[in-house]
Amino acid sequence: MRTSIATVCISGTLADKLHACADAGFDGVEIFEPDLLAAAESPEEIAALAARLGLSLDLYQPMRDVEGVDDEALAAVLHRAEAKFRLMRRLGMDLVLCCSNVGTATIDDDAVSADQLRRLGDLAAGYGIRIAFEALAWGRFIDDYRRAWRIVERADHPAVGVCLDSFHILSRGHDLSAISDIPGEKIFFVQLADAPRLSMDVLSWSRHHRLFPGEGEFDLADFTARIVDAGYTGPWSLEVFNDTFRQTDARRTARHARRSLRWLEDAVSRVLPDAPTDLQMLPDSAAPSSVDFVEVKAEDTSAIEELLAQLGFTSRGRHRTKPVTLWTAGEARVVLNEQHARGWEPRLAAIGLEVDDAEAVDLRMGELRVPRAYRRTYATEERLDGAVAPDGTEVYWAQAADEGDPVWVREFDHGEPERATAITGVDHVSLSQPWDAVEEATLFYTAGFALRVDSATEVPGPRGLVTSRVLVAPGGDVRLPLNVAPPILAAERAGVALPQHVAFASDDVRAVARSARDRGFAPLEMPGNYYDDIAARFPLTEAQVEELRDLHLGYDRDAAGAYLHFYTRTIGEVFFEFVERVGGYAGYGAGTAPVRLTAQGRR
Amino acid sequence: MRTSIATVCISGTLADKLHACADAGFDGVEIFEPDLLAAAESPEEIAALAARLGLSLDLYQPMRDVEGVDDEALAAVLHRAEAKFRLMRRLGMDLVLCCSNVGTATIDDDAVSADQLRRLGDLAAGYGIRIAFEALAWGRFIDDYRRAWRIVERADHPAVGVCLDSFHILSRGHDLSAISDIPGEKIFFVQLADAPRLSMDVLSWSRHHRLFPGEGEFDLADFTARIVDAGYTGPWSLEVFNDTFRQTDARRTARHARRSLRWLEDAVSRVLPDAPTDLQMLPDSAAPSSVDFVEVKAEDTSAIEELLAQLGFTSRGRHRTKPVTLWTAGEARVVLNEQHARGWEPRLAAIGLEVDDAEAVDLRMGELRVPRAYRRTYATEERLDGAVAPDGTEVYWAQAADEGDPVWVREFDHGEPERATAITGVDHVSLSQPWDAVEEATLFYTAGFALRVDSATEVPGPRGLVTSRVLVAPGGDVRLPLNVAPPILAAERAGVALPQHVAFASDDVRAVARSARDRGFAPLEMPGNYYDDIAARFPLTEAQVEELRDLHLGYDRDAAGAYLHFYTRTIGEVFFEFVERVGGYAGYGAGTAPVRLTAQGRR
Repeated sequence: MRTSIATVCISGTLADKLHACADAGFDGVEIFEPDLLAAAESPEEIAALAARLGLSLDLYQPMRDVEGVDDEALAAVLHRAEAKFRLMRRLGMDLVLCCSNVGTATIDDDAVSADQLRRLGDLAAGYGIRIAFEALAWGRFIDDYRRAWRIVERADHPAVGVCLDSFHILSRGHDLSAISDIPGEKIFFVQLADAPRLSMDVLSWSRHHRLFPGEGEFDLADFTARIVDAGYTGPWSLEVFNDTFRQTDARRTARHARRSLRWLEDAVSRVLPDAPTDLQMLPDSAAPSSVDFVEVKAEDTSAIEELLAQLGFTSRGRHRTKPVTLWTAGEARVVLNEQHARGWEPRLAAIGLEVDDAEAVDLRMGELRVPRAYRRTYATEERLDGAVAPDGTEVYWAQAADEGDPVWVREFDHGEPERATAITGVDHVSLSQPWDAVEEATLFYTAGFALRVDSATEVPGPRGLVTSRVLVAPGGDVRLPLNVAPPILAAERAGVALPQHVAFASDDVRAVARSARDRGFAPLEMPGNYYDDIAARFPLTEAQVEELRDLHLGYDRDAAGAYLHFYTRTIGEVFFEFVERVGGYAGYGAGTAPVRLTAQGRR
Repeated sequence: MRTSIATVCISGTLADKLHACADAGFDGVEIFEPDLLAAAESPEEIAALAARLGLSLDLYQPMRDVEGVDDEALAAVLHRAEAKFRLMRRLGMDLVLCCSNVGTATIDDDAVSADQLRRLGDLAAGYGIRIAFEALAWGRFIDDYRRAWRIVERADHPAVGVCLDSFHILSRGHDLSAISDIPGEKIFFVQLADAPRLSMDVLSWSRHHRLFPGEGEFDLADFTARIVDAGYTGPWSLEVFNDTFRQTDARRTARHARRSLRWLEDAVSRVLPDAPTDLQMLPDSAAPSSVDFVEVKAEDTSAIEELLAQLGFTSRGRHRTKPVTLWTAGEARVVLNEQHARGWEPRLAAIGLEVDDAEAVDLRMGELRVPRAYRRTYATEERLDGAVAPDGTEVYWAQAADEGDPVWVREFDHGEPERATAITGVDHVSLSQPWDAVEEATLFYTAGFALRVDSATEVPGPRGLVTSRVLVAPGGDVRLPLNVAPPILAAERAGVALPQHVAFASDDVRAVARSARDRGFAPLEMPGNYYDDIAARFPLTEAQVEELRDLHLGYDRDAAGAYLHFYTRTIGEVFFEFVERVGGYAGYGAGTAPVRLTAQGRR
């Protein structure tokens, strides 16, 4: 499988883009014409740079409004085309994308379009160039790949084939079964983009909201598998118009893009397990079963220690070789790390995940070229394998223990005897994301750990809307809400825009709250109006509401059950939540979150 | 006319919002329930604060999913409603908004909904409360104000009326003529929001993209006039869900919101010139006829002086009392100001506009409560009236001179004799805007100077998309593109995110370029690939293309004519463009702008 990417996907000048694409390991690029026009380098210099970088120049694009026109317009088309063919020869390129006519089409007739493509094909052939004809989803007359193929078939010219673009086809929901009617050698090019399912005009959707494969809601594995099955052997090329990726760092975005194709290769190989392709699956069994630990890092972690002690955690002692302590409650393990943390306020620096097959995750991360996290370990210590998530959080994975504590817990000495607690483990870990990294983070967790996107929501806070997307382990006990702060708030904060938080699970959160209060704990205070509303909305007794009010507990219900929870104050850039899920409640207390954001703002 | 605003329109806690709304001069507010739930203050404290601030509490909102339900659900509705009515009594409020059912409706029957509203009305009346029923644009069964009114009419209860919301009605394009069928006293409340015309699902459109009146594309003057005409005498209340206004400074946004209602009052008074209302028109004749001057401010303006000299401007000398010089070419006047500019790189600090009736603009700005710009003037000097635009640019206005130089030019001494030039005046002034101020800026120019939004576009640059919205004077010669930089680029720059620029008009831009080159001027260099593309796209001779290439001129065409232009390098935060419009060309060289952005990035 050869990989390619349109230069429009990333930021910078054309030369910057070529460097970034080569660095990320792409085999080739599509030259997006406006990038070339704005480049200071001549076509020959661009060709030479690409050659030095080992990049093939796969597709020149786009040539617009070439068919369905009257004779006068066709003459101008041929004049323009010939100039572009000469330019392509200077670039050493032999394939050009022609889009179905949007602007100048006046003739809605397959025979006319086929004839005009044939004439263009004749002209192109003289330059050793081939034409890939693509139906834009908003083409004036031709907006369906099946019609584009009918026209190409009718043109019946060796230099004229089709380009299939996943966005233009999947956005319109066109039946994919006709792909198998197209001979593989007549599919001249394939462009791939994912996208969220949005209800908006298809042009704006396409120009601003495309995503890399694995980040949206299109079934790209099925789409691509059908094309492979049809015998297409050309590059898999990304063409992603996205307002964010246009401005993020080109090298980082190119690597992110390349990772999405590795994910897609795996997904397609699973759709076509028996086909004779060179596609490589990723190792299986990556999905985590539970959270192994969370790590809070700070120059001084004592405020966190006091809080954990109040909440019923047990101090399990100090690490043998590092300034690190361990606190546990049930299966919840909190590592407090004062190493290399000069000047740091407490922040969530790492999470550990328990997996069934640590080696599979390791291989998977390698294949995805994810940056690794490094921890120095000594001979007697457990090795920790980890990766750096796009937001900078280190994510480690370890083989799940059959029962009892994980092996690494033994590295801590001088612990206290474990205290009884109603805390059972970690329910979820909320990670605040930079707005421009949340797609990359989604791919990191879905491709690296086989998590899936479970739900998305918006939480109105006093400083704007916080958007939240929850990633969950299928069949596992890992939930990671990724939160994005509103931009003005984010711009004001040097570190994370919103505090991160760990929600600990409990089977009796009222008991946790009560015994914590006995030890001097003061929860984040919820306002009285909130409890008046709970009394109005839910069928609770007055005594039940009073108990919630007394303990500053939040309350929510869905069809399956209820959610009781309370928050600690924020220390540095982190706070804790304690939650009890009654019945099959599946949410995260969305009704309480806005009240919490306001209460935190008041602090 | 009484003014009101929903607390959801602005940022902060409920108490913050009340202070901001009072400060902006609103008469009352709608209490958006989630704001109250999150507030630390009791309902009694909120009522007392509002009373002290002189704000009436006009509407409690929203109460959802109250009708079209089965008996069991209705019991829960009545339980919930009674709790809210008690709460409203504590707030001293007597009007509640009930939205048409979105979530729980199972019965699609006017009779059932009318009966249930009647029962709710009975309950409400016992608390001295009235119910305003509103059809949401996405209501499950009731999504049209005409049906909402049929149901209210059928309910026939003194405590049950309708709420008319401009967004829910205009977004759906419903016929407005039925508004006149509703007796004014049965219109219990009116909510106003503008919006851009977007092709997207109406719920997302409503929740994220509403605007204040005058900033979108709805005909709010007609809508509101019909309601006034129907006899409605309650408050005009803003309900604007907008992702930006939720996070901007509450006081500033509240003033901006209040300004939009003053604009709307004027617009409605013009639709209803003969109606016996208390509506006040704004003074007429505010639209500017031309740009009087542009002012560049810097600690040292000599680099700009050198540039203007090369480009054929004449030094008209130094101001009598200030460290300010004047440069002119044709009707183009550039003021270079070194006063109070310590440490400043050159930036566009002010523009002056010539208007037919300076006093009208002055009165208009006063009515709109626009912040004033202040310049010290001495007895012998012309007074300069100005306002501060939302981006900080000072905008002055002056009576247009009958002919010849404006009077203030005489305040400059020791000028050189005017040189012949092909420069004729100012074509347009591009103002880079903070992303969160562009709506406020639009209202500033449309309400203050009667400009109108002419066109909007997106320009792809190497660091992301620049969005641009052009404001023009109807029938005048003033064009102000407002540009917004992509956020990562904007965050990197301390000052303006993109350089501002002044485009000077010429009737022979090639002559300007050539003579400037003779004086040592070096234009912003356009790449060779750009000219190859021009040769391919436009029917120009080889010699014509070579002339463009030689002079680094940009070229564009539309149906009416052509555009030739070149750019200077950027000095500090400003650059200049020189343009020639051939025929009726109406654009701004959108094809050249991406190439220019890349060339500027290369600098």
